[in-house]
Amino acid sequence: MARADELAAHSEQPGGLTRVSLSPEYRAASERVMGWMREAGMTARLDAIGNVAGRYEGERAGLPCLMLGSHLDTVRDAGRYDGMLGVICAIECVQALHSAGRRLPFAIEVLGFTDEEGVRFGVTLLGSRALAGTLDPALLEAKDRNGMTMAEALRGFGLDPARIGTAARSRGELLAYAELHIEQGPVLEAEGLPVGVVTAINGYTRMRVSIEGTAGHAGTVPMALRRDALAAAAECVLAVERAAASEPEVVATVGRLEALPGAINVIPGGARFTVDVRAPDDARRLRAAARIEKEISSICARRGVALASERTQEQGVTACSPWLIERLARAVEGEGLRVRRLPSGAGHDGMALQTIADIGMLFVRCANGISHNPAEAIRAADAAAGARVLLRFIEEFRPRELQ
Amino acid sequence: MARADELAAHSEQPGGLTRVSLSPEYRAASERVMGWMREAGMTARLDAIGNVAGRYEGERAGLPCLMLGSHLDTVRDAGRYDGMLGVICAIECVQALHSAGRRLPFAIEVLGFTDEEGVRFGVTLLGSRALAGTLDPALLEAKDRNGMTMAEALRGFGLDPARIGTAARSRGELLAYAELHIEQGPVLEAEGLPVGVVTAINGYTRMRVSIEGTAGHAGTVPMALRRDALAAAAECVLAVERAAASEPEVVATVGRLEALPGAINVIPGGARFTVDVRAPDDARRLRAAARIEKEISSICARRGVALASERTQEQGVTACSPWLIERLARAVEGEGLRVRRLPSGAGHDGMALQTIADIGMLFVRCANGISHNPAEAIRAADAAAGARVLLRFIEEFRPRELQ
Repeated sequence: MARADELAAHSEQPGGLTRVSLSPEYRAASERVMGWMREAGMTARLDAIGNVAGRYEGERAGLPCLMLGSHLDTVRDAGRYDGMLGVICAIECVQALHSAGRRLPFAIEVLGFTDEEGVRFGVTLLGSRALAGTLDPALLEAKDRNGMTMAEALRGFGLDPARIGTAARSRGELLAYAELHIEQGPVLEAEGLPVGVVTAINGYTRMRVSIEGTAGHAGTVPMALRRDALAAAAECVLAVERAAASEPEVVATVGRLEALPGAINVIPGGARFTVDVRAPDDARRLRAAARIEKEISSICARRGVALASERTQEQGVTACSPWLIERLARAVEGEGLRVRRLPSGAGHDGMALQTIADIGMLFVRCANGISHNPAEAIRAADAAAGARVLLRFIEEFRPRELQ
Repeated sequence: MARADELAAHSEQPGGLTRVSLSPEYRAASERVMGWMREAGMTARLDAIGNVAGRYEGERAGLPCLMLGSHLDTVRDAGRYDGMLGVICAIECVQALHSAGRRLPFAIEVLGFTDEEGVRFGVTLLGSRALAGTLDPALLEAKDRNGMTMAEALRGFGLDPARIGTAARSRGELLAYAELHIEQGPVLEAEGLPVGVVTAINGYTRMRVSIEGTAGHAGTVPMALRRDALAAAAECVLAVERAAASEPEVVATVGRLEALPGAINVIPGGARFTVDVRAPDDARRLRAAARIEKEISSICARRGVALASERTQEQGVTACSPWLIERLARAVEGEGLRVRRLPSGAGHDGMALQTIADIGMLFVRCANGISHNPAEAIRAADAAAGARVLLRFIEEFRPRELQ
């Protein structure tokens, strides 16, 4: 808990937590995490995309690893556990092994991924995609809100954009990837359980929508002659909300919206917004996304404004591997706890890592299901329970072929 | 036209025009305008709020003045004539008198007002209110989008916030205020006329609305449990649009809207927006504003989000003085043009100056009624016609008592 507090101090703004990738505060948090890794007997480094990578060798050097971890970037005005708890608990587990002088028949790597949240460049999972070798190099030209490209941000951070390919790892190096994370939902709290085993990560569709109307003077253009881009966008926001409600368990969110030029006495000539659609079932998600696109298109046609809409990300449901679900469940039982299996409504780095490793996830209960919010909270006892389950999972871990 | 082009180069961004008050580009434009004033035989200075003030003495020094002018600040991504044309034409008229060695039985002052548009601090008519002595000192604490207060901006510009009272002028110093401005509407173009005489300036009501919902993770909070501030704001934007359409000749605009924290995967916990309502009739405007407030309040109550709404500005219809309308109409006729009287849908500095002077306004035709937009355009011949009418008005001007 103290380490979560300490990391939370590395923020863009005082009195709150915002830590986007490749920022000075991200640098400071990374340095702190690498310090803890080294105290726990690991080697630690920043890889070519800015992930913090620690390694604890097994019985001999160079063995394939069990990879643990989570992410170190945050959303704007974030909580202090989403991401960071998984990194801190993994280091804690390695520390326990190191203190006991134990080496296992495999290496352990702990990753603190960069830009899982996608806040800075509008695209998520940058660190884990680079590690999986699936980061599209075109993303190097993606810009942050200040117009800085990812390539420029990497350079400013002391990294070489031409070398991001070296962050990629191969399937042969990884025995599995297991992540501890706060639930970010209300299920475990409702059932009175400190931890749960994740069965799958919901899929999502993300869109970027841009509407062009005609800017004009707020006092002189009659209502009937207006082509107000913001009024069109407002209708679209409500269409997104309705489309989500039309399919069970689908959620859809407009998280960013910008009106241009953005003056009190100017009819907005432009509007830009994002759409995020998620579901535990791919068919339902895709139906909702198609419905949103159709409604947005008909709203813009009716209002006579130009529309440019694109799907920026599409991610199917990510299944956790049955054998890892099973091993995590055994570790939960081993700690004397009831096993609750549940899907994840939020996305996680495992979605990117599934192309190079089987994945498993352990959830820790959080207060009121709140995350991405300063009110995000967990109990110290639950963090401890999560870390104990994770340590037991590590100690009892055997590669897939040996199940 | 060349001077309008020259001023347009003093912009916050290249390739477009944005010049907010007390900025470096506002400073540069002011210096240029003061140079033109001095070439036209005037003294020129910046007053305590940052207005450019030029004076051309009459037959003897210290006579009361006919005040001319308009504003030098712009909206974001503006056109180059809204405001500037009135200042440039007034200087041109004084230049004509100066070249002919003429002195009139009154002084002429030409004002280039600061912050008519209200872009920087969200409050309009700052320069003309200071000149009228009606600027609320509490506005010195108003903040721009970077959190800088007006007092700090004045200091940064080399002005002393404690001295803004010295910008105030008294009724005895002014014989009248007359402003030339582009129409910003489609009437003169539809009737094939280069100029028109303004009868009144529409009144307006402005509001600032803030909605607080609950931020949360875009993937984990079911639709039914959300309190999405942006979705509520989107409903409000459409209510504003509907309310305007419910009263004839009323227009209403949401020009700024911001969702907080503003990340693709976070349910917006906060939303802020502005409302601008205008009408040529005070009763209709106030009915529309009350309807907007009632609908916003009921939307927020139904959605379970907190609402804070305030009227930031309230301005009744401003009538132009009949004797000035008459003198401007005679000058139009004197130039061989048909007289078209029309109201102004946009606000102007005269609204603030009416407390210390009778006011009159002359409109110049603009293309497609477009303003507050880079596509704002006028014909050179229309600018010349406007300047000739203004010069004739000045030359034939007699104080009210002598009508």
